[in-house]
Amino acid sequence: MPRTYDRQQACPIARSLDIVGDRWTLLVLRDLRRGHSKFADLLVSLQGISPTVLSERLQSLEQDGLAARRFYSDHPPRAEYVLTPRGDSLAPVLKALYDWGTEHAPRPPRTTAAR
Amino acid sequence: MPRTYDRQQACPIARSLDIVGDRWTLLVLRDLRRGHSKFADLLVSLQGISPTVLSERLQSLEQDGLAARRFYSDHPPRAEYVLTPRGDSLAPVLKALYDWGTEHAPRPPRTTAAR
Repeated sequence: MPRTYDRQQACPIARSLDIVGDRWTLLVLRDLRRGHSKFADLLVSLQGISPTVLSERLQSLEQDGLAARRFYSDHPPRAEYVLTPRGDSLAPVLKALYDWGTEHAPRPPRTTAAR
Repeated sequence: MPRTYDRQQACPIARSLDIVGDRWTLLVLRDLRRGHSKFADLLVSLQGISPTVLSERLQSLEQDGLAARRFYSDHPPRAEYVLTPRGDSLAPVLKALYDWGTEHAPRPPRTTAAR
Protein backbone atom coordinates (compact mmCIF):
# COMPACT_ATOMS: atom_id res chain seq x y z
CA MET A 1 0.00 0.00 0.00
CA PRO A 2 1.26 3.49 -0.76
CA ARG A 3 2.48 5.46 2.22
CA THR A 4 1.77 9.13 2.70
CA TYR A 5 4.99 9.70 4.57
CA ASP A 6 7.22 7.50 2.48
CA ARG A 7 10.34 9.56 3.12
CA GLN A 8 9.70 9.92 6.85
CA GLN A 9 9.94 6.25 7.76
CA ALA A 10 12.73 6.82 10.28
CA CYS A 11 10.12 8.52 12.51
CA PRO A 12 7.72 6.42 14.60
CA ILE A 13 5.14 9.25 14.51
CA ALA A 14 5.09 9.16 10.71
CA ARG A 15 4.88 5.37 10.68
CA SER A 16 1.92 5.52 13.07
CA LEU A 17 0.18 8.13 10.95
CA ASP A 18 0.68 6.00 7.84
CA ILE A 19 -1.51 3.43 9.59
CA VAL A 20 -4.05 5.57 11.48
CA GLY A 21 -3.70 9.01 9.87
CA ASP A 22 -6.43 8.73 7.26
CA ARG A 23 -9.61 10.69 7.81
CA TRP A 24 -12.10 8.76 9.94
CA THR A 25 -9.75 5.90 10.84
CA LEU A 26 -9.31 6.94 14.47
CA LEU A 27 -13.05 7.54 14.84
CA VAL A 28 -13.76 4.05 13.50
CA LEU A 29 -11.35 2.69 16.10
CA ARG A 30 -13.08 4.82 18.74
CA ASP A 31 -16.45 3.26 17.90
CA LEU A 32 -15.13 -0.29 17.69
CA ARG A 33 -13.80 0.29 21.22
CA ARG A 34 -17.25 1.39 22.27
CA GLY A 35 -18.63 -1.94 21.11
CA HIS A 36 -20.20 -0.93 17.83
CA SER A 37 -19.41 -3.94 15.72
CA LYS A 38 -21.86 -4.15 12.85
CA PHE A 39 -21.50 -2.13 9.67
CA ALA A 40 -24.98 -0.64 10.02
CA ASP A 41 -24.31 0.37 13.65
CA LEU A 42 -21.02 2.00 12.73
CA LEU A 43 -22.69 3.89 9.92
CA VAL A 44 -25.06 5.39 12.48
CA SER A 45 -22.51 6.05 15.22
CA LEU A 46 -20.09 7.64 12.74
CA GLN A 47 -22.55 10.27 11.58
CA GLY A 48 -21.26 11.94 8.46
CA ILE A 49 -19.16 9.05 7.11
CA SER A 50 -20.13 7.55 3.76
CA PRO A 51 -20.68 3.80 3.38
CA THR A 52 -17.83 3.69 0.87
CA VAL A 53 -15.34 5.32 3.22
CA LEU A 54 -16.46 3.17 6.15
CA SER A 55 -16.01 0.07 4.04
CA GLU A 56 -12.53 1.18 2.94
CA ARG A 57 -11.49 2.01 6.49
CA LEU A 58 -12.66 -1.32 7.88
CA GLN A 59 -10.78 -3.11 5.12
CA SER A 60 -7.59 -1.17 5.90
CA LEU A 61 -7.95 -1.82 9.61
CA GLU A 62 -8.30 -5.52 8.87
CA GLN A 63 -5.27 -5.52 6.55
CA ASP A 64 -3.22 -3.72 9.18
CA GLY A 65 -4.29 -6.17 11.86
CA LEU A 66 -6.09 -3.56 13.96
CA ALA A 67 -9.55 -5.07 13.52
CA ALA A 68 -10.83 -8.52 12.66
CA ARG A 69 -13.95 -9.57 10.81
CA ARG A 70 -16.08 -12.29 12.36
CA PHE A 71 -19.05 -14.00 10.80
CA TYR A 72 -21.86 -14.34 13.29
CA SER A 73 -24.37 -15.79 10.84
CA ASP A 74 -23.88 -18.16 7.92
CA HIS A 75 -27.33 -17.93 6.34
CA PRO A 76 -27.37 -15.17 5.36
CA PRO A 77 -23.67 -14.43 5.86
CA ARG A 78 -23.31 -11.53 8.29
CA ALA A 79 -20.10 -10.11 9.61
CA GLU A 80 -19.11 -7.96 12.52
CA TYR A 81 -15.87 -6.24 13.34
CA VAL A 82 -13.90 -6.36 16.56
CA LEU A 83 -10.68 -4.74 17.68
CA THR A 84 -7.59 -6.93 17.82
CA PRO A 85 -5.07 -6.49 20.67
CA ARG A 86 -3.00 -4.42 18.24
CA GLY A 87 -6.01 -2.17 17.56
CA ASP A 88 -6.67 -1.97 21.26
CA SER A 89 -3.12 -0.79 21.86
CA LEU A 90 -4.03 2.51 20.21
CA ALA A 91 -6.04 3.48 23.30
CA PRO A 92 -3.37 5.96 24.51
CA VAL A 93 -3.52 7.80 21.17
CA LEU A 94 -7.31 8.12 21.43
CA LYS A 95 -6.99 9.20 25.05
CA ALA A 96 -4.43 11.90 24.23
CA LEU A 97 -6.73 13.27 21.51
CA TYR A 98 -9.72 13.06 23.85
CA ASP A 99 -7.91 14.93 26.60
CA TRP A 100 -6.60 17.61 24.26
CA GLY A 101 -10.01 18.14 22.66
CA THR A 102 -11.68 18.35 26.05
CA GLU A 103 -9.29 21.01 27.25
CA HIS A 104 -8.34 22.89 24.08
CA ALA A 105 -11.12 22.44 21.55
CA PRO A 106 -14.41 23.25 23.25
CA ARG A 107 -17.63 22.26 21.60
CA PRO A 108 -18.81 25.06 19.31
CA PRO A 109 -22.17 26.66 20.03
CA ARG A 110 -25.03 25.39 17.90
CA THR A 111 -25.63 27.79 15.05
CA THR A 112 -29.10 26.63 14.13
CA ALA A 113 -32.09 26.77 16.44
CA ALA A 114 -33.79 23.52 17.39
CA ARG A 115 -37.10 23.05 15.63
CA MET B 1 -13.37 26.75 8.01
CA PRO B 2 -15.14 23.56 6.95
CA ARG B 3 -14.93 20.71 9.40
CA THR B 4 -14.38 17.12 8.36
CA TYR B 5 -16.31 15.77 11.32
CA ASP B 6 -19.09 18.31 11.36
CA ARG B 7 -21.64 15.91 12.81
CA GLN B 8 -19.28 14.51 15.45
CA GLN B 9 -18.75 17.72 17.39
CA ALA B 10 -19.98 16.21 20.66
CA CYS B 11 -16.78 14.13 20.70
CA PRO B 12 -13.49 15.69 21.84
CA ILE B 13 -11.53 13.24 19.67
CA ALA B 14 -13.35 14.45 16.56
CA ARG B 15 -12.86 18.09 17.55
CA SER B 16 -9.14 17.48 18.01
CA LEU B 17 -8.89 15.76 14.65
CA ASP B 18 -10.67 18.66 12.98
CA ILE B 19 -7.70 20.76 14.09
CA VAL B 20 -4.75 18.38 13.76
CA GLY B 21 -6.12 15.55 11.60
CA ASP B 22 -5.03 16.81 8.20
CA ARG B 23 -2.18 15.04 6.50
CA TRP B 24 1.21 16.44 7.58
CA THR B 25 -0.16 18.71 10.33
CA LEU B 26 1.17 16.61 13.21
CA LEU B 27 4.53 16.23 11.50
CA VAL B 28 4.77 20.01 11.08
CA LEU B 29 4.07 20.34 14.81
CA ARG B 30 6.71 17.68 15.49
CA ASP B 31 9.34 19.68 13.61
CA LEU B 32 8.36 23.00 15.15
CA ARG B 33 8.90 21.31 18.51
CA ARG B 34 12.34 20.23 17.35
CA GLY B 35 13.22 23.86 16.71
CA HIS B 36 12.87 23.99 12.95
CA SER B 37 11.39 27.43 12.50
CA LYS B 38 12.12 28.67 8.99
CA PHE B 39 10.09 27.65 5.99
CA ALA B 40 13.15 26.41 4.12
CA ASP B 41 14.29 24.33 7.11
CA LEU B 42 10.85 22.79 7.50
CA LEU B 43 10.76 21.95 3.82
CA VAL B 44 13.97 19.96 4.30
CA SER B 45 13.05 18.32 7.61
CA LEU B 46 9.59 17.34 6.30
CA GLN B 47 10.96 15.37 3.36
CA GLY B 48 8.18 14.61 0.95
CA ILE B 49 5.91 17.58 1.73
CA SER B 50 5.22 20.07 -1.05
CA PRO B 51 5.81 23.81 -0.52
CA THR B 52 2.10 24.43 -1.15
CA VAL B 53 0.98 21.96 1.51
CA LEU B 54 3.56 23.23 4.01
CA SER B 55 2.38 26.78 3.42
CA GLU B 56 -1.27 25.77 3.90
CA ARG B 57 -0.48 23.84 7.06
CA LEU B 58 1.48 26.70 8.63
CA GLN B 59 -1.37 29.06 7.83
CA SER B 60 -3.91 26.73 9.45
CA LEU B 61 -1.71 26.29 12.52
CA GLU B 62 -1.49 30.06 12.82
CA GLN B 63 -5.26 30.48 12.41
CA ASP B 64 -5.88 27.83 15.04
CA GLY B 65 -3.44 29.46 17.44
CA LEU B 66 -1.06 26.49 17.49
CA ALA B 67 1.85 28.34 15.89
CA ALA B 68 2.81 32.00 15.57
CA ARG B 69 4.70 33.79 12.83
CA ARG B 70 7.52 36.11 13.85
CA PHE B 71 9.47 38.44 11.61
CA TYR B 72 13.15 38.27 12.38
CA SER B 73 14.24 40.58 9.55
CA ASP B 74 12.56 43.63 8.06
CA HIS B 75 14.74 44.11 4.99
CA PRO B 76 14.08 41.78 3.38
CA PRO B 77 11.08 40.65 5.41
CA ARG B 78 11.72 37.15 6.73
CA ALA B 79 9.47 35.16 8.96
CA GLU B 80 9.89 32.17 11.22
CA TYR B 81 7.34 30.01 12.97
CA VAL B 82 7.23 29.03 16.61
CA LEU B 83 4.86 26.89 18.64
CA THR B 84 2.43 28.67 20.91
CA PRO B 85 1.62 27.21 24.36
CA ARG B 86 -1.54 25.79 22.77
CA GLY B 87 0.56 24.11 20.08
CA ASP B 88 2.95 22.87 22.73
CA SER B 89 0.05 21.29 24.61
CA LEU B 90 -0.23 18.70 21.83
CA ALA B 91 2.95 17.02 23.08
CA PRO B 92 1.03 14.09 24.66
CA VAL B 93 -0.63 13.35 21.29
CA LEU B 94 2.74 13.27 19.55
CA LYS B 95 4.19 11.15 22.35
CA ALA B 96 1.35 8.61 22.14
CA LEU B 97 1.88 8.29 18.37
CA TYR B 98 5.65 8.04 18.88
CA ASP B 99 5.29 5.31 21.47
CA TRP B 100 2.79 3.35 19.40
CA GLY B 101 4.91 3.60 16.26
CA THR B 102 8.01 2.53 18.15
CA GLU B 103 6.32 -0.56 19.51
CA HIS B 104 3.78 -1.49 16.84
CA ALA B 105 4.99 -0.08 13.52
CA PRO B 106 8.61 -1.09 13.06
CA ARG B 107 10.67 0.59 10.41
CA PRO B 108 10.34 -1.30 7.13
CA PRO B 109 13.50 -2.74 5.58
CA ARG B 110 15.00 -0.67 2.78
CA THR B 111 13.91 -2.08 -0.55
CA THR B 112 16.53 -0.38 -2.71
CA ALA B 113 20.26 -0.92 -2.41
CA ALA B 114 22.44 2.04 -1.49
CA ARG B 115 24.43 3.37 -4.40
